[in-house]
Amino acid sequence: MPEYRQDLTTGQWVIIATDRAKRPETFAGKKERLEARFEQPPYRENCPFCMGNETLTPPEIIALGRDSGAPDTPGWRVRVIPNKYPAVEPKGNPRPEHRPGEAIFRDMPGYGIHEVLVETPRHNLHPGSLGREQMELVVESYYQRFQHMSGDNNLRYVQIFRNHGREAGASIEHPHSQLIALPIVPPVVKQELQRSHDYYLSTEGCPYCHALAEEMEFGSRVVADNRFFSAYVPYAAHLPFEVWIMPKQHRSSFQEISKQEMSDLAEIMDRALGRLSNALDDPPYNFYLHSSPLRTSGLPYYHWHIVIIPKLTTVAGFEMGSGVFINVTVPEQAAEFLREKGGEVNGIRPKDLLCPGSA
Amino acid sequence: MPEYRQDLTTGQWVIIATDRAKRPETFAGKKERLEARFEQPPYRENCPFCMGNETLTPPEIIALGRDSGAPDTPGWRVRVIPNKYPAVEPKGNPRPEHRPGEAIFRDMPGYGIHEVLVETPRHNLHPGSLGREQMELVVESYYQRFQHMSGDNNLRYVQIFRNHGREAGASIEHPHSQLIALPIVPPVVKQELQRSHDYYLSTEGCPYCHALAEEMEFGSRVVADNRFFSAYVPYAAHLPFEVWIMPKQHRSSFQEISKQEMSDLAEIMDRALGRLSNALDDPPYNFYLHSSPLRTSGLPYYHWHIVIIPKLTTVAGFEMGSGVFINVTVPEQAAEFLREKGGEVNGIRPKDLLCPGSA
Repeated sequence: MPEYRQDLTTGQWVIIATDRAKRPETFAGKKERLEARFEQPPYRENCPFCMGNETLTPPEIIALGRDSGAPDTPGWRVRVIPNKYPAVEPKGNPRPEHRPGEAIFRDMPGYGIHEVLVETPRHNLHPGSLGREQMELVVESYYQRFQHMSGDNNLRYVQIFRNHGREAGASIEHPHSQLIALPIVPPVVKQELQRSHDYYLSTEGCPYCHALAEEMEFGSRVVADNRFFSAYVPYAAHLPFEVWIMPKQHRSSFQEISKQEMSDLAEIMDRALGRLSNALDDPPYNFYLHSSPLRTSGLPYYHWHIVIIPKLTTVAGFEMGSGVFINVTVPEQAAEFLREKGGEVNGIRPKDLLCPGSA
Repeated sequence: MPEYRQDLTTGQWVIIATDRAKRPETFAGKKERLEARFEQPPYRENCPFCMGNETLTPPEIIALGRDSGAPDTPGWRVRVIPNKYPAVEPKGNPRPEHRPGEAIFRDMPGYGIHEVLVETPRHNLHPGSLGREQMELVVESYYQRFQHMSGDNNLRYVQIFRNHGREAGASIEHPHSQLIALPIVPPVVKQELQRSHDYYLSTEGCPYCHALAEEMEFGSRVVADNRFFSAYVPYAAHLPFEVWIMPKQHRSSFQEISKQEMSDLAEIMDRALGRLSNALDDPPYNFYLHSSPLRTSGLPYYHWHIVIIPKLTTVAGFEMGSGVFINVTVPEQAAEFLREKGGEVNGIRPKDLLCPGSA
């Protein structure tokens, strides 16, 4: 019998196709895919993101880890550059206007900022295998750019995201995240803000805090855990092996993150992505970071978080039309599979998993 | 310079990537793809939807066009059957309950109905080449099932949809639509209802009627038009070659459609899908029908419609996280391309296009 589950934070229902559920191992790729990645050379002559090829990109915005040396030279460990083919540009007046020649439609110039965050000088490293120290630099670069964008009053929101693998929309193989800063609060975030505000007004609580407490108590959907963060397959996951990374302290904006939390975030991202990679053989995936809008902090109803979604199925007409997703894995089974088959990640074995509910 | 455009009916912003815009012909497939379809035999021995293979499916629910003969025998022109692997089933109590063992999450049995509407006995026909008469039977089957579902008080919404091509999620090649009836109003429709209700309260008008009037007046995004319907690439199309089919009379529910309108709907669907197929060489696509919920009609603020979305690009982390889509075609250029390269469709040449704004 299939079942509907409702997500506490979005209010949306998903259908867990228990009858047609596929066993988690169905989604594993080929071991060769994972091995092939590590067999690639760490440097490729024509890759614009490889160390030594800095002249192939626009001038860098910041670089982390380069102790000495001029900008756009080797020696960096994380490098932030403008996107060469930006979706938006910091030009023109970011105010909606009625479109000339059309009575009721509104448009505005494509104001915004589009940057690429190169996560490592090495072409062949896997995002779940960068190691905690390197991931800390990646997180640090997210934070620095986020801080910087909050100084531009034309911008309302920073969307940090990552596409891994061609099927997930990555056009360049070298590990990189992206950031698009927008003059509007995007609709998905707006809905989360509205929903969580309604929830807060009726219960006096943050729905993310409530859901997180339940996930930690119940325990069987938890994939990884440390002092400041928990990573789990949410109760109403809408796609197979979806994983959320949630700060344990209530924080509405990513900008509120502390140094210690940044370190733990790096550790849990590395571990969660490593488990996905090991269990599913380097699947294509997308992740994105949701935060309250720029220049807001301390909102009692919202809670920043990261959503990781492997690209394993095709979103088709029913999902597009209704917004109701049919998840062909059972979240508890997906989490168990990630814990058990996620294997040793950076020296941390599954037994090291802290899982308050199952301890 | 890229530009943002806001959709009047959803309130959402899209980025039209004018700078990185691809010329429409970039998206055309290979002529061979279209030809290959017609070269297939009209009957395949192991296809469960081909005429003569009725025993390969569960017993039929209704069939149209079979003048005599028993159910589950040849002679039909459209055949509606239960989905053999249903996502939902009409069993159990469709009321949300708190999940046993979990404090705050809600679930309910996967109540619902999942049917397949086989659109033609012929395996090798293209949905844009069924011809008006056959499409009328398809539309009639939508209508009859919609009517039937409205008698079940456990159901709130009927989602009619179609997946064409493997990339768009079709697992069976033989032309078919699907229907999933749900005990909830799905979130995408809920958002449209809320947005249009707000719009109505502030302007006294239906946003769909307003947008349609503007599209017809402006004219250059119209793809096909007849007495009761207009098909156009919307001003703020979020994906390349997205086409909306909109009734010209204000109608909130698909159930309010008249016989004459059904005939015109069949004609415009056949023509719009035919143009997409001809111009883009049988691209994979999804379409879905949005209506007000079951047992509602005459709502002054909502307007049923069909959305057709060819699957030509990859939706990635930015779109998933933000809900803001980057459209790499310019809607006016996409519409022009469909009008000009859509070619002759069922004997109707582009010059027959009625386009009020460009006349």
